[in-house]
Amino acid sequence: MWLRTRCELTFDFAVATPLILMLRPHGGAEQWVGREEYRLEPYVHACEFTDSYGNLCQRLTAPADDFTIVTSADVQVVERVDTAPGAPFVDIESLPDDVLIYLLPSRYCESDRFGQMAAEIAAGHTLGYDQVAAIAAWLRHRIRYVPGSSDVPISAVDVNLRQAGVCRDLSHLGIALCRGLSIPARLVVGYLHALAPMDMHAWFEAYVGGRWYTFDATQPGSAGGYVAIGYGRDAADVAIFNQFGPPANRTSQQVTVERLD
Amino acid sequence: MWLRTRCELTFDFAVATPLILMLRPHGGAEQWVGREEYRLEPYVHACEFTDSYGNLCQRLTAPADDFTIVTSADVQVVERVDTAPGAPFVDIESLPDDVLIYLLPSRYCESDRFGQMAAEIAAGHTLGYDQVAAIAAWLRHRIRYVPGSSDVPISAVDVNLRQAGVCRDLSHLGIALCRGLSIPARLVVGYLHALAPMDMHAWFEAYVGGRWYTFDATQPGSAGGYVAIGYGRDAADVAIFNQFGPPANRTSQQVTVERLD
Amino acid sequence: MWLRTRCELTFDFAVATPLILMLRPHGGAEQWVGREEYRLEPYVHACEFTDSYGNLCQRLTAPADDFTIVTSADVQVVERVDTAPGAPFVDIESLPDDVLIYLLPSRYCESDRFGQMAAEIAAGHTLGYDQVAAIAAWLRHRIRYVPGSSDVPISAVDVNLRQAGVCRDLSHLGIALCRGLSIPARLVVGYLHALAPMDMHAWFEAYVGGRWYTFDATQPGSAGGYVAIGYGRDAADVAIFNQFGPPANRTSQQVTVERLD
Amino acid sequence: MWLRTRCELTFDFAVATPLILMLRPHGGAEQWVGREEYRLEPYVHACEFTDSYGNLCQRLTAPADDFTIVTSADVQVVERVDTAPGAPFVDIESLPDDVLIYLLPSRYCESDRFGQMAAEIAAGHTLGYDQVAAIAAWLRHRIRYVPGSSDVPISAVDVNLRQAGVCRDLSHLGIALCRGLSIPARLVVGYLHALAPMDMHAWFEAYVGGRWYTFDATQPGSAGGYVAIGYGRDAADVAIFNQFGPPANRTSQQVTVERLD
Repeated sequence: MWLRTRCELTFDFAVATPLILMLRPHGGAEQWVGREEYRLEPYVHACEFTDSYGNLCQRLTAPADDFTIVTSADVQVVERVDTAPGAPFVDIESLPDDVLIYLLPSRYCESDRFGQMAAEIAAGHTLGYDQVAAIAAWLRHRIRYVPGSSDVPISAVDVNLRQAGVCRDLSHLGIALCRGLSIPARLVVGYLHALAPMDMHAWFEAYVGGRWYTFDATQPGSAGGYVAIGYGRDAADVAIFNQFGPPANRTSQQVTVERLD
Repeated sequence: MWLRTRCELTFDFAVATPLILMLRPHGGAEQWVGREEYRLEPYVHACEFTDSYGNLCQRLTAPADDFTIVTSADVQVVERVDTAPGAPFVDIESLPDDVLIYLLPSRYCESDRFGQMAAEIAAGHTLGYDQVAAIAAWLRHRIRYVPGSSDVPISAVDVNLRQAGVCRDLSHLGIALCRGLSIPARLVVGYLHALAPMDMHAWFEAYVGGRWYTFDATQPGSAGGYVAIGYGRDAADVAIFNQFGPPANRTSQQVTVERLD
Repeated sequence: MWLRTRCELTFDFAVATPLILMLRPHGGAEQWVGREEYRLEPYVHACEFTDSYGNLCQRLTAPADDFTIVTSADVQVVERVDTAPGAPFVDIESLPDDVLIYLLPSRYCESDRFGQMAAEIAAGHTLGYDQVAAIAAWLRHRIRYVPGSSDVPISAVDVNLRQAGVCRDLSHLGIALCRGLSIPARLVVGYLHALAPMDMHAWFEAYVGGRWYTFDATQPGSAGGYVAIGYGRDAADVAIFNQFGPPANRTSQQVTVERLD
Repeated sequence: MWLRTRCELTFDFAVATPLILMLRPHGGAEQWVGREEYRLEPYVHACEFTDSYGNLCQRLTAPADDFTIVTSADVQVVERVDTAPGAPFVDIESLPDDVLIYLLPSRYCESDRFGQMAAEIAAGHTLGYDQVAAIAAWLRHRIRYVPGSSDVPISAVDVNLRQAGVCRDLSHLGIALCRGLSIPARLVVGYLHALAPMDMHAWFEAYVGGRWYTFDATQPGSAGGYVAIGYGRDAADVAIFNQFGPPANRTSQQVTVERLD
């Protein structure tokens, strides 16, 4: 399906403020970008670079006072995400080199603390895909999904204590649990068609059966409509914006996702 | 200045044909992409990846019969390219690691054959930028620039024999001469505002004084208006398309570059 | 000076256990490896790869029962580490792309929590090197360095609470404080000549004045003798070994560093 | 089997001369480095870096007059290289991204000129491994292997004209022919046990059936004993040394490979 995404960010900074943004989707095996726009109002000089995860990042210094960023894209994505019940666990020694980094603990996914808990949640399931599916189901039933409930990322340990969180929080806990079973897992940030309430979204992927599969603890079923803008170990790697210096007086974020076909 | 580029490629393949394309400009220190479009008619599944030079590449299998690719972008670029008379030669031991590859000979730039000739052309000039400027001036005066004169790339040795060539050929000879002086040089492919006749364009960059500088042996002065889509050692690295299998019955390429502001 | 390092790790695993190791130093701007040895007893098939930070990593499956790894290297390193009082802070917009990752919070360096505290510690110092030097001095005076006091890494927040830690802990807090001032900082793991008691060591580097500088909150002065084996955002990236599966019955680690000239 | 390699290079330079060397083997799926040595006489400051192909490279400035480099390594390699008759051709659209670069023409492998000839040599063979085996057999029968016959690399077109060459030349022609069939192929430089006369060696690999396979047009059978030190598109990428400036008055190279077990 073709989706048209749009994100409008507005800031009111007291002083000129450096920003690093991750707002430009790029193509991959699962999505194709047919049209895309990135407006800066007022226009300031901006640089783009590719980070070590392959994400397109933009670097600029936002001027003081009002500053608006509008990005929009037409992206072709799959109707349903692939599922693969029974897909096997991949032995550490058989994992591709560049997947190994997703086994390690990271800022918001203290996987070194979740081995025992993960083993309990996944007990009785075939090693691999089915374990991850059990983790996602457990998250859906046990951790309350409360959109808008947190401003700044909290780590998997805290999510587990609060038993509630935003999409990013559930994903962080899911990732920590997967890694606790030696299953590589990573965070994806982007858009989801028909998300309610509409906003930027976060989900996770696990590496089983020789490839990455999509899991979303906030959504039932396996409907597609995901547009990725960034991949990383957790939200510390994939912030749609990082700002340096005093916080903005005001920030607003408006997101829409529309189906085109 | 803001430029709107457009490139329309049409093919008529006898059989389904794999293509690797390099048609999506991306941002860097010198250019910012504000809008961008990539249409496939008919639409086929396509994948995007980043090559080892950082270029965005698209991979797809074109269907038999008519196939059209239309790409378009609004890009902000500089009015004048930077020049730096006197900028010094950088010692081999001080070059950044990732620049070293641009010292070596490559498919169309047999720099190992041009040491003597480069030394003669650049004789009497300060080591560094001025040597490259002398090479570019020599190319302008001695190698006839004949747009449309060659279909397939020829190497620097052949360009030097023919004393004539397209923009890519002059660039290849320029690169081979720079490398012959141990100055890193690379090919850039993209668009140039007000190029006559309008077409895709190629120019080169040399690394002196601690950064890359733009040189164009086909143009006088230092007007800007360059939109880069790919960087590499020579045209073997930066083809706007590589096709695998029997050649197309027909290929056409229409390029426009329009100033927006 | 030439140093001879030696590290002997012995394990007693109940079952065959996958390991990812980081025990082979490699050359860089600051060190040259003249001789090097990596023995596996008993010998098992092992693979080597380079991670995204450029570290050499070794992957193997350790057999059940006794398994010993002996690594040794002769490395030429500097007598004194470079210092640069007054070296300026580098603006976010001027940092090299590959340095940006070291500005972000990571598993053991929750820099997003340390902005205020870092500003207080560094108050009154010139932006840049002097701020980092102030942080290192503060760590030396305020956080007790207790070799052998912790087994598993604790994060900067916890180090700050305990006011004590091993070399890795002090480094984590130093890194979190630097990043809190928008100064890129990274962890280095390796050997230090004349460290007492002798063991593997960890220190940190900060990026100011256009390059990385070494800081060590556990050592006075600026004596050299550092042999690096891994660089990363924190100890989650640079473990000398990661094991997957049940813990070893017994692990021992013997380290020596000897001066050769 | 365990092999001990040794290479001694001696130079007599008129002036201090920058060198980029590729003389340190590193581990991979097929080889493990158990001991290794790299001596510079006299000792000069040297830096090491990893190039875009993953090879370890050393950069230094050799002093005027006598300069000697001695490298030695103990490497565990396979007794026989893997063969896979019938392993299928991999469609362009299914090749891993990082393999695609090995489809393109390069300095010494003008594969764009060899499509027709490759098709004739491989006619009647199953697409994939068997085509490459046919090319290797053709090289063995038709191109005379004359160790020591050329000093500087010549390109595949010239090798084909001369019908004779050193190991590197036969490999270049083999690579050009493979790529002419849209089969990725790359050059490997290193050591071969029991090579006669003993010297550095070059062979090639082709990507079929989902992985790289070793081919050597200078050797019958599929005996192992290969120690790789560098991989690349051709000899322009993988020179054991590149020097910049006037040629040495004298260069000598002594190589030994000894079996340890």
